[in-house]
Amino acid sequence: MTSAPVCVLGLGLIGGSVLQAAVRAGRDAWGYNRSADAIAGAAEAGYDVGTDLVAALTRAAESGALVVVGVPMPAVDSILAAVAEHAPSNPVTDVVSVKAEVAAAVARHGLARNYVGGHPMAGTNESGWQAADPTLFADAVWVVGVDDDADPDVWRQVASLALDCGSVVVPVESTEHDRAVARISHLPHLLAETLAQAGASGGALALGLAAGSFRDGTRVAASAPGLVRAMCEGNATALTDVLDEALAVLTRARAELADHRSTEALVTAGHAARTAYEQHRRFDITDIEPGDDGWIERLREAGRKGGVVRQIRSASPG
Amino acid sequence: MTSAPVCVLGLGLIGGSVLQAAVRAGRDAWGYNRSADAIAGAAEAGYDVGTDLVAALTRAAESGALVVVGVPMPAVDSILAAVAEHAPSNPVTDVVSVKAEVAAAVARHGLARNYVGGHPMAGTNESGWQAADPTLFADAVWVVGVDDDADPDVWRQVASLALDCGSVVVPVESTEHDRAVARISHLPHLLAETLAQAGASGGALALGLAAGSFRDGTRVAASAPGLVRAMCEGNATALTDVLDEALAVLTRARAELADHRSTEALVTAGHAARTAYEQHRRFDITDIEPGDDGWIERLREAGRKGGVVRQIRSASPG
Repeated sequence: MTSAPVCVLGLGLIGGSVLQAAVRAGRDAWGYNRSADAIAGAAEAGYDVGTDLVAALTRAAESGALVVVGVPMPAVDSILAAVAEHAPSNPVTDVVSVKAEVAAAVARHGLARNYVGGHPMAGTNESGWQAADPTLFADAVWVVGVDDDADPDVWRQVASLALDCGSVVVPVESTEHDRAVARISHLPHLLAETLAQAGASGGALALGLAAGSFRDGTRVAASAPGLVRAMCEGNATALTDVLDEALAVLTRARAELADHRSTEALVTAGHAARTAYEQHRRFDITDIEPGDDGWIERLREAGRKGGVVRQIRSASPG
Repeated sequence: MTSAPVCVLGLGLIGGSVLQAAVRAGRDAWGYNRSADAIAGAAEAGYDVGTDLVAALTRAAESGALVVVGVPMPAVDSILAAVAEHAPSNPVTDVVSVKAEVAAAVARHGLARNYVGGHPMAGTNESGWQAADPTLFADAVWVVGVDDDADPDVWRQVASLALDCGSVVVPVESTEHDRAVARISHLPHLLAETLAQAGASGGALALGLAAGSFRDGTRVAASAPGLVRAMCEGNATALTDVLDEALAVLTRARAELADHRSTEALVTAGHAARTAYEQHRRFDITDIEPGDDGWIERLREAGRKGGVVRQIRSASPG
């Protein structure tokens, strides 16, 4: 089971890295990309790639491959339409950075039964196949969905791919995932874009004095704007809530600073929070098997507490 | 002139690194620190350090040393009182992260005539002598003040120390400096403290999913809270203005996101700003000598445009 073929649709930074990591793990794997130019050199490098979506999906249907949707959110719908037409019974996952919206699209296309979502928490400021790297997911966290009615065999297949790519698996329900990543992935982008503007508004003097805190605080503002927008806008509801939290914290900090020349409340709480992050420790989930009674709720609960899955037992022992 | 002795008062990360870099550059240099425990091992490592402030300043007075104030803002006043008493005619600079407040304190103590402020734009999340490093300022930017009535000889001495420590010199007037660093150094801290709180509020799940964008965006929230507070609170007026700018940007972004599910305006402007930062290029200031007609205003203007000083000519040619 763990050696099922893998069909990756969309070969940008994340999809391309999944293809490369799957090949490296010994999987039979092939990929589709809409643009031939974007994957120039991939075939010469030995990767089995092409621009024929129907052919890629037909092959998936014939071989029972795990289909990995690796396109940005705005392109997900049209890809799922093709999956529903050409490989409607295949197990399907995705590597998109939001989950509830993908799950809803999957359901609209009648693919929910065979779908378990995924989100590898890795990336760089670069994008495209040229930046893809088979080690991108090494020691990273890979979210694997545990939504209601998830199929245990599909879950095993998706988790196995994540493990084969070198990641640890965190089981998370889609809406909870979206709320969490709004905090730790999407809000960082909004703040980085804001900080970059505050710096540039100071002209050459301010930019010339900028050192480590500005460089690191604006790093992700260098990411391709289209990808940042797709990610943030695909999670607009959860992100708005978290942005409101941040605005409330900053507004209180503004009052503390202007009225009392103090940053005590902000800095004390911020330092404690960063310390909590640095001290966060994972634990291994070893006693829950997909398909066990209550496995979905138990995996969700373990994921919430910091649990990770590091190995998947074979579905049918013996 | 460039080989004048150096007396460093306060041997934390920055002061300690100045002492180490000055020694490495061949300067006769010694240091004072209030706490002996904090500089344990410094004497054994060959550094000329002690806890007797009067002795350090008496030696400075006798040798005409450049006095470097390296204590955090809250301790500046008492250190300047001692300088005024024991070395009132010595050239004085500082390495505090705000400039207008230090300049005002210097004036209160009657030391303005011999003072030119400084601010090396370098640091780490760590603090204290144990973290000091003689290469901390290599290739960094070191602001040297060009306030009204600056003395050209003191200016040369301060700039020479910065150059000896491996930095390039950016000439900036104190109030302009404070406005600029509010943008690129102090606002990054407020945003990092805010982001850290937003992440930690998501509990173990959010902290466990956090990857590069959260790690980098909260890095400086790991800094010692006392130092962050001293830095930000010492620049409260300029920082409040910049925080208001950032709040306005984020409030517009909130409306764009909630009302239109878009982040286009924010991300477009943020990416352009980060690109401007990456493309910022310095130029060398080669045609302005301290003491020339209009040198102060000309250095200010060159600094505003991105100019840096890389060498100082001897004060008295021939």
